[in-house]
Amino acid sequence: MNPPVIQFSYPFVVFLGDIDSEIYAKTGFGMVQWRRESCVGQLRLPDCSIDAGVPDVDVAAARAAGAKSLIIGSAAVGGGIPDTWVAKLCEAARAGLDIVAGLHIRLSALPGLAAAAAASGARLVDVRVPPPGIPVGTGGKRTGRRLLTVGTDCACGKKYTALALDQELRRRGIASDFRATGQTGIMIAGRGIPLDAVVADFLTGAAEQLSPDNAANHWDVVEGQGSICHPGYLQVTVGLLVGSQPDAFVVCHDPLRETISGWPEFKLPSIAEVIERTVSLGRLTNPAIRCVGVSLNTSKLPKHSRQQVLARFAAETGLPCVDPLVDGTAPIVDRLLQEFPP
Amino acid sequence: MNPPVIQFSYPFVVFLGDIDSEIYAKTGFGMVQWRRESCVGQLRLPDCSIDAGVPDVDVAAARAAGAKSLIIGSAAVGGGIPDTWVAKLCEAARAGLDIVAGLHIRLSALPGLAAAAAASGARLVDVRVPPPGIPVGTGGKRTGRRLLTVGTDCACGKKYTALALDQELRRRGIASDFRATGQTGIMIAGRGIPLDAVVADFLTGAAEQLSPDNAANHWDVVEGQGSICHPGYLQVTVGLLVGSQPDAFVVCHDPLRETISGWPEFKLPSIAEVIERTVSLGRLTNPAIRCVGVSLNTSKLPKHSRQQVLARFAAETGLPCVDPLVDGTAPIVDRLLQEFPP
Repeated sequence: MNPPVIQFSYPFVVFLGDIDSEIYAKTGFGMVQWRRESCVGQLRLPDCSIDAGVPDVDVAAARAAGAKSLIIGSAAVGGGIPDTWVAKLCEAARAGLDIVAGLHIRLSALPGLAAAAAASGARLVDVRVPPPGIPVGTGGKRTGRRLLTVGTDCACGKKYTALALDQELRRRGIASDFRATGQTGIMIAGRGIPLDAVVADFLTGAAEQLSPDNAANHWDVVEGQGSICHPGYLQVTVGLLVGSQPDAFVVCHDPLRETISGWPEFKLPSIAEVIERTVSLGRLTNPAIRCVGVSLNTSKLPKHSRQQVLARFAAETGLPCVDPLVDGTAPIVDRLLQEFPP
Repeated sequence: MNPPVIQFSYPFVVFLGDIDSEIYAKTGFGMVQWRRESCVGQLRLPDCSIDAGVPDVDVAAARAAGAKSLIIGSAAVGGGIPDTWVAKLCEAARAGLDIVAGLHIRLSALPGLAAAAAASGARLVDVRVPPPGIPVGTGGKRTGRRLLTVGTDCACGKKYTALALDQELRRRGIASDFRATGQTGIMIAGRGIPLDAVVADFLTGAAEQLSPDNAANHWDVVEGQGSICHPGYLQVTVGLLVGSQPDAFVVCHDPLRETISGWPEFKLPSIAEVIERTVSLGRLTNPAIRCVGVSLNTSKLPKHSRQQVLARFAAETGLPCVDPLVDGTAPIVDRLLQEFPP
């Protein structure tokens, strides 16, 4: 039986539609950044003025280059999906490409698309929709090693940090998989479960399915969600933590934020508080859980104070502290492998 | 706009079908125990050999007595719903009674029932299905007072204790509402949200909707779910805790249990550990949260040791400690009103 995890096949072509601003193509640009080796090119409609920096292909060329999936990498401005997009998606589905998207509506609701896919045997993959058959969490110990990214808030670098850690582990020849828990992550990984959309009772079980038994020295690097001190979303964070049973975790933090983003009445927790709570709850399924690093977003800091801020957090926590976008994650991976020798 | 909460109308008739064992009629018997004043009678099919101790009525008599809802109070043995049950439910729906159930299938899937209800304008209320429109939790402070029952495990008296506390508060003339979070509780209350079935992201929001702003001295007594140390369900417990923002909580415990029921690898937490964790996480939305009592299930203890066990837990915790089924909840309500004078 297949595990209850969303899954689709590489290589892929990234569909950008006809948008004129990169802001609406974050998913597409992220796909090219993190999975360039699996991208056969970009499919752009005539009026598209943005460029992801990969070859332009049409449906036939994408198929000829081996593409198995078309990933919708842009958000249509204004909510609806334009007819011109739907026509191109139908053409791709008829040609046998699986269509992958994280739209607010189901792909099967786009006129003609379900029939086009059925005709060729292509699949429609909605990455916002959890797969059926997710069980309740058992808490049972699984083989292999796991690292979870956590944060002092939402949107502070948990996905990026996890991807960068996975990349650095692989660079060193260590077996590793990025495990995706949100829609963009699932598109990048080609696999995952959108945890925020899972029914509450099955959240720990979903996290367990996401990082199954593996080889003793294999690392699953799990994309974190929410924050353990977040008044709206902490339940997702807690379920993911206990179901993932991580050996190690990395705290992601934006040093300029003072309150929870969008919840201005709530003070941002300190890194120390997040570490303490994560260890306290994480011990339930992994008594040896420990923090191995801090990932800071320094992009909005004045250039001259960047090193100073990193050094201050490193001194405060006694942990390697990096901005993965600037410094990479090598110091954290050094610490990880020191604590958990391969 | 109506709040996103399941709601149906009293008085009700309880439908027991044709079962021959009280084990399958827990819901029906609970309804009669807790809401006798709103029950016009029981509707039994010819072969039914159990008796909830209320007058037998047919559909016409139930309507004549003012019933607005028929509540399915039995579980059909073997899973499916027998044709004889469906025929009687259709008759009741045609007569204008709302049909309320917590079945594994939707009421609308029973042959003819949706049409029968549509013909009279009756509603089909599935108490396992969360209402649409639940928002994300805001963490905003609400007026009024709240008490939450928590537990060292699932199925250790959280619903019963909450109902008994609500009853004792009302007996003393203090404004109080029992707030239901599970299917049986919702049937008893006529209102509630089945939290285990809510999508993870909206769990804190659902808990907020369940105990809205109220008069300053009004108590919402919220039915707890799961346990803060449960490897499968703690995310539900945590979301309910933070969304409910309780002023006070009561810990429910079965003194004979040594491991989490159904999770034998997990040691049952101590009452002290549950108090510490509940305070630690509950402070996020209510910094003054405190424990006001312990509710023990002593039914399986030898009679001579009951008082001794209660006294031991009272000494260990410094809190009033009762078995609500035997002793009532007066000592806990005394403590509550001492800590929070009306």
